Formats: sequence, C-alpha cells, structure tokens
Amino acid sequence: MSTFNSHPINRLRKAYGNMIGIRLKDGREFRGLLEAQDQHMNMVLTNAVEYYKGDKVAAFGKIFIRGNNILWVRIDIPAE
Amino acid sequence: MSTFNSHPINRLRKAYGNMIGIRLKDGREFRGLLEAQDQHMNMVLTNAVEYYKGDKVAAFGKIFIRGNNILWVRIDIPAE
Amino acid sequence: MSTFNSHPINRLRKAYGNMIGIRLKDGREFRGLLEAQDQHMNMVLTNAVEYYKGDKVAAFGKIFIRGNNILWVRIDIPAE
Amino acid sequence: MSTFNSHPINRLRKAYGNMIGIRLKDGREFRGLLEAQDQHMNMVLTNAVEYYKGDKVAAFGKIFIRGNNILWVRIDIPAE
Amino acid sequence: MSTFNSHPINRLRKAYGNMIGIRLKDGREFRGLLEAQDQHMNMVLTNAVEYYKGDKVAAFGKIFIRGNNILWVRIDIPAE
Amino acid sequence: MSTFNSHPINRLRKAYGNMIGIRLKDGREFRGLLEAQDQHMNMVLTNAVEYYKGDKVAAFGKIFIRGNNILWVRIDIPAE
Amino acid sequence: MSTFNSHPINRLRKAYGNMIGIRLKDGREFRGLLEAQDQHMNMVLTNAVEYYKGDKVAAFGKIFIRGNNILWVRIDIPAE
Repeated sequence: MSTFNSHPINRLRKAYGNMIGIRLKDGREFRGLLEAQDQHMNMVLTNAVEYYKGDKVAAFGKIFIRGNNILWVRIDIPAE
Repeated sequence: MSTFNSHPINRLRKAYGNMIGIRLKDGREFRGLLEAQDQHMNMVLTNAVEYYKGDKVAAFGKIFIRGNNILWVRIDIPAE
Repeated sequence: MSTFNSHPINRLRKAYGNMIGIRLKDGREFRGLLEAQDQHMNMVLTNAVEYYKGDKVAAFGKIFIRGNNILWVRIDIPAE
Repeated sequence: MSTFNSHPINRLRKAYGNMIGIRLKDGREFRGLLEAQDQHMNMVLTNAVEYYKGDKVAAFGKIFIRGNNILWVRIDIPAE
Repeated sequence: MSTFNSHPINRLRKAYGNMIGIRLKDGREFRGLLEAQDQHMNMVLTNAVEYYKGDKVAAFGKIFIRGNNILWVRIDIPAE
Repeated sequence: MSTFNSHPINRLRKAYGNMIGIRLKDGREFRGLLEAQDQHMNMVLTNAVEYYKGDKVAAFGKIFIRGNNILWVRIDIPAE
Repeated sequence: MSTFNSHPINRLRKAYGNMIGIRLKDGREFRGLLEAQDQHMNMVLTNAVEYYKGDKVAAFGKIFIRGNNILWVRIDIPAE
C-alpha cells in the first residue's frame, strides 16, 4: 500500500551505522550506533548510552531493544 | 471492505509534504512535515517540534514515531 | 461468519456524511461528520469538536482517530 | 476446533433482537436490544441505557461498542 | 505442535456441563456450568454466581465472558 | 527459524509430569505438576499450590493458567 | 525485508551459550547462560541470577522468560 520510498521502516534502515536515539515509553532514551533492525522495530545498538531525565545512567557495548517498548526514534542526533 | 476513497489511511497519505499534528497517548504532540507513513500508522516527520501542555519542549530534524502510541492525527494545522 | 446486514462495521459505514460521536478510552469525545472509516475502526471526522467532561475543548477541520483508542461510537447524535 | 453448537459467539448471535447487558472493563454497563455483532465482539445496541454503579447515566438510540473493551455480556436480562 | 491429549484447551472442553471457576484479572471469580468455549478462551456459563473477595455479589442465568480478561480457570470445583 | 533443540517451548514440553513454578505478572506463583501446555503458553497444572509473597494462599486439583499472564516459568523446582 | 546479517533476532542467536542480561518491564534483570530463544523473544537461561535494584534476589537452575515482558537484552555482560 506504499511505495518503497515512503515506507517509515526504510528510513530507519538508511540509518545503519549511524548514531540514533531511541525513546522508550518509560521515558528512557538510548543513543548508539544502529547495527540491526526489523519490521517489529526490534533494534540492536552498539556503543550505546542510556539517558534518563538528561543524565547518563548506563553504557552498553551491545544492546537489543524490543520494538514494542519504543515511543519514537530520532535519526538526526546532533553533534555534542 | 472499503473503497479507496473512503479508507482513513489514504487520507493521511494525501498529506505527504504537508504540516500535520500527531497526538500521542501520553499527551505529547508532534508537529512537522509528513515524509513517510505506513499501515501501522508508523510516521516520519521532518522539521518537527514537540509540544507538551502548550509549550514547545523539543525539536527534531527527523523523527520516526511508532504507530501504536498515536491517539489522533490532525491534518489541518492552522497557520500560526 | 455473519451476514452483511448484521455486521457492526457496516452500521458505521451507513453513517458516512452524518454527525457521529466517538468516545475514547480516556473519556474524551469527538463529534463531527464521518468521512472515512476502516475495519480497524480508524475514523476520519471533518468539522469536529472535542468535548471533555461536557465542555468543548478543541475544534478540528479534519481529524484522524486511531481505532484502538475507541470505547464506543454513537450514531444517533441528537440535534442541539 | 469446536462444533457450531458449542461456540460462544453463536450464543450471542441467538440473542439478536433481545435485551442484553454489556459490562465494560471500566465498570460501565450498557443494556439494549442487540442489533449486530461480529467475531471481535464489536456490538451494536439500539434503545440502549448506560448504567454506572447502579445509576442510569445516559441513553442512546443506537450505539456501537468496540469489542476489546468488553468484560462480559449477560444474555438473560431479568424483567424490571 | 502438540498432540490432542496434551493441549490445554482440550482439558477445558472435557469440562462441558461441569461446574468450573473462572478468575478474572480484576480479582472477580465466576462459578457456573460450562456451556460453550472457544480457542480465544471466550466462555459461556449457565447458573453462574459472581464472587468478589469471598462474597457472592451477583447471579446470572447465562453469561458470556470474554477470554482476554481471564487469569485462570479451575476445573475441580470442590463441593460446598 | 530455530532448530528443534533450541526452541524454548520445547524445553517446557520436556517438563511434562514434573513439578514446575509459574510466576504471573501480578506476583503470584503457582507450583504443580505440568499436565498440558501449548504455543500460547497456556498451561495446565495438577496438584497445584498458589503462593503470594512467600505464603501458600490456595490449592487446586487442576488449574488452567492463561498464557498471556505469565512472566516466567522455572523448570527446576528445588526439593523442599 | 532484511538480510540475514541485519536481523536483530540473529544477533541474539549468536549469543547461545554466552552470559546475557535480560531486563524486564518491571525493572527486574536476569543474568544467565542463553540456552534457547525464539522469534517471540521467549528465552531460556541456565544458571540464572535475578537482580532487582542492584541486589541479587533469586537464583534459578533453569528459567523460561516469556518474551512479551522483555524491555531489552544486553549481549555484552562485563566480567565481574
């Protein structure tokens, strides 16, 4: 029902290897390099940092995030 | 079970490139240009602003919003 | 498993162009003209007004409501 | 996996035109004449009354109730 | 993926006509004679009594319980 | 997508006739002999005991537990 | 829609026999050796320890965790 170009999941796939930010429903945000992603929005990040209310609270060499917990994904992480 | 014209998802697709407003279940609203959308109501906005209780709280160059968090979408953003 | 006549979704479809009322799970109600509807109960209203606890709280030229948030739909809006 | 006779949905269908009571998860109960019903338990009632904690709180000429909000349906409304 | 004998739904079906107890997620329990049941765990009881915190709170000639609200079903109601 | 040996459901099936412990999302735990189980994780226990916060609170000759309420299952019940 | 290499579930499968950490939505974390996993993210751990707010609260010889309760999985458990 949609062309390849207009499909949101494809936009995420273009971000492979880039820094992205994943906001979960509980308010936590994970930033890291996108290594893998599927149609359920399950995502694998490497070199990830977890933020909560603006503070870094944990770091992960590789983390798998289950898609159904995700609120939004920002694809344009600004340089710090 | 419905004609092309009467399908709600088609109404959203007509809004590609236009400013729309997406209200999430937690009360947050994102306004931006609709770049991509699928049948799960996953949506990609560019030049997006997040509002909460009437205040601008964040800006995003490009943001992917997971469809199952969405309450409603307004297609007729009034000029400010 | 049911005839055309007895299917609830068909009853909604007969209301195209009529004023209906949509109650969401969070207590909000939207009244407007039914423009589109699908089998997930996604619905598009035009000239819509949002009510909360009896008060008009917002107006929308065109609004898309995601079906999974809906509690009930009244098809017989009384004249005001 | 079950015969026609033993399928719960069929029991509801036998109630077409009869007075039934629908209890929602939020404690509200709707009583009215069953006009339509499908396999998702979406139901349409006519001449419906809404009760909350024993009090009549609203009346509806025709109301569509989304099946996923339903806790139980009583098929044997006692005469008042 | 399982033989007829080991499938849990089949165990429920063997209870047709017997007294069973259905515990809902909200803590309520319904006891009655199992008349119908399907693969979603939708169940119809006749001569049912509703218990809450140990007290009888209501009686139903025939009640349809939507499967997704069910926590557990006891098949071995002890004699009172 | 996985071999017979590595599939989690198969591990549960190997426990037929053994004592297992089922923790529900609401904190309750049921221990009993596994009699039946399916791919939705619906499970039937015989000679079951319900524990809450470390106390035995109920006993069941045979109980059917709906899979979607389950948090985890321990397959290695230690001897008491 | 994705190549074998980029699929997140495949990343988990590579961890068979390794120590992983599973964070549940309720804040509990289980660490143990990954023995089995499927496409629903159901997972079996052996020699598992449960942590809550930084404290070890329980140990399990073998535990089956239902996938829909999982928030994230860390694949890179640091040596203690």
